Amino acid sequence: MVVQNCSDSGIAGCSFSIHPMSDGFVEIITAALANVDTSKVWMDTDDVTTTVRGRLTHVFDVTKSIYIQAAKTGEHVAFEATYSLGCPGDSAGDVYMAEDDIPVNSPQVSDIKQPAAAKFSLYPLGGGNYMDVIMEQIEAMKKHVDVSHAHYSTRLDGESVKIFDGLEQVFNATVDGGSSHTVMTVSISANSPSTKGVGEHE
Amino acid sequence: MVVQNCSDSGIAGCSFSIHPMSDGFVEIITAALANVDTSKVWMDTDDVTTTVRGRLTHVFDVTKSIYIQAAKTGEHVAFEATYSLGCPGDSAGDVYMAEDDIPVNSPQVSDIKQPAAAKFSLYPLGGGNYMDVIMEQIEAMKKHVDVSHAHYSTRLDGESVKIFDGLEQVFNATVDGGSSHTVMTVSISANSPSTKGVGEHE
Repeated sequence: MVVQNCSDSGIAGCSFSIHPMSDGFVEIITAALANVDTSKVWMDTDDVTTTVRGRLTHVFDVTKSIYIQAAKTGEHVAFEATYSLGCPGDSAGDVYMAEDDIPVNSPQVSDIKQPAAAKFSLYPLGGGNYMDVIMEQIEAMKKHVDVSHAHYSTRLDGESVKIFDGLEQVFNATVDGGSSHTVMTVSISANSPSTKGVGEHE
Repeated sequence: MVVQNCSDSGIAGCSFSIHPMSDGFVEIITAALANVDTSKVWMDTDDVTTTVRGRLTHVFDVTKSIYIQAAKTGEHVAFEATYSLGCPGDSAGDVYMAEDDIPVNSPQVSDIKQPAAAKFSLYPLGGGNYMDVIMEQIEAMKKHVDVSHAHYSTRLDGESVKIFDGLEQVFNATVDGGSSHTVMTVSISANSPSTKGVGEHE
């Protein structure tokens, strides 16, 4: 196997799923997709996840907007995503690199009020003081939303748009800080009937 | 911040969610939990994920069994999980370390036929030849299920029990191989109405 660092190509991507906990899940997903302009990214959906590849700003613009369009239905919707940039095993194909950095969907969702709870984890791979980078970015997240400790992740509570603002800035800062292979996972829950901390037992 | 390697404590954990795409999601999750013996792990559920902590074998036993109990309802169910061992930021609390390594639920689910499609990613953090470890473990997965390429992950197709057998062995092998901080994410989809590769566009 040839391990090659492709981060210079700047191809960002996200493998994500929208899970509406509703009998109408197909309609909710289809309607959300219909309301989002995906012309600035490459997108592929299979039975497990949807993959989006392109410039980082458009990858966040599209994934955020699909999630918010689904969540605003009021149904309990979960969003599960892995963002990635610089994977040495990445290919150069399956991508559309738009010419500009102007997010096309964000203006349509920026005013939508949708409180949510999320957990995110940042994985700067390939060594270095990766734990320092993580702690620094958890601190930076506090400018956007409420931040608290969770096992294996960091919990975020706030408006969905602010959660995504924070995620995008944290990811950008990690890449700009020199991480050659950056992965970030996030789980977001909107309109959950559960309250926080519903049960703990041994 | 004091970064301390806690992998010697052997506390494995998983933060996961079960997402039944059904109006009856609460009942499906509640029934699945009622059918699983969680006495050998520490478990806590909030509105985003459920966290399980304990010996690795019990963490897999419990998460696999909850997923299979939910999937066998025939509803479209997604399982999203992050397994972790050795996180330097981990705490020593919130854990129950059972005295033995005998999985208590696996015998009840081992004969349940439940085909599924999954995508998994392995992240051996903290440097080293992490891409070699990943490639080796993708190869090892072929002993268990059908393996194919996906962006940012590896796709697995097969029986759910075999998928979990493979995931557990790959995780164990990565830890045994010397990874001080191991993270593995997995998305599993059961009973999806979509066929593989339903759409690609630019």
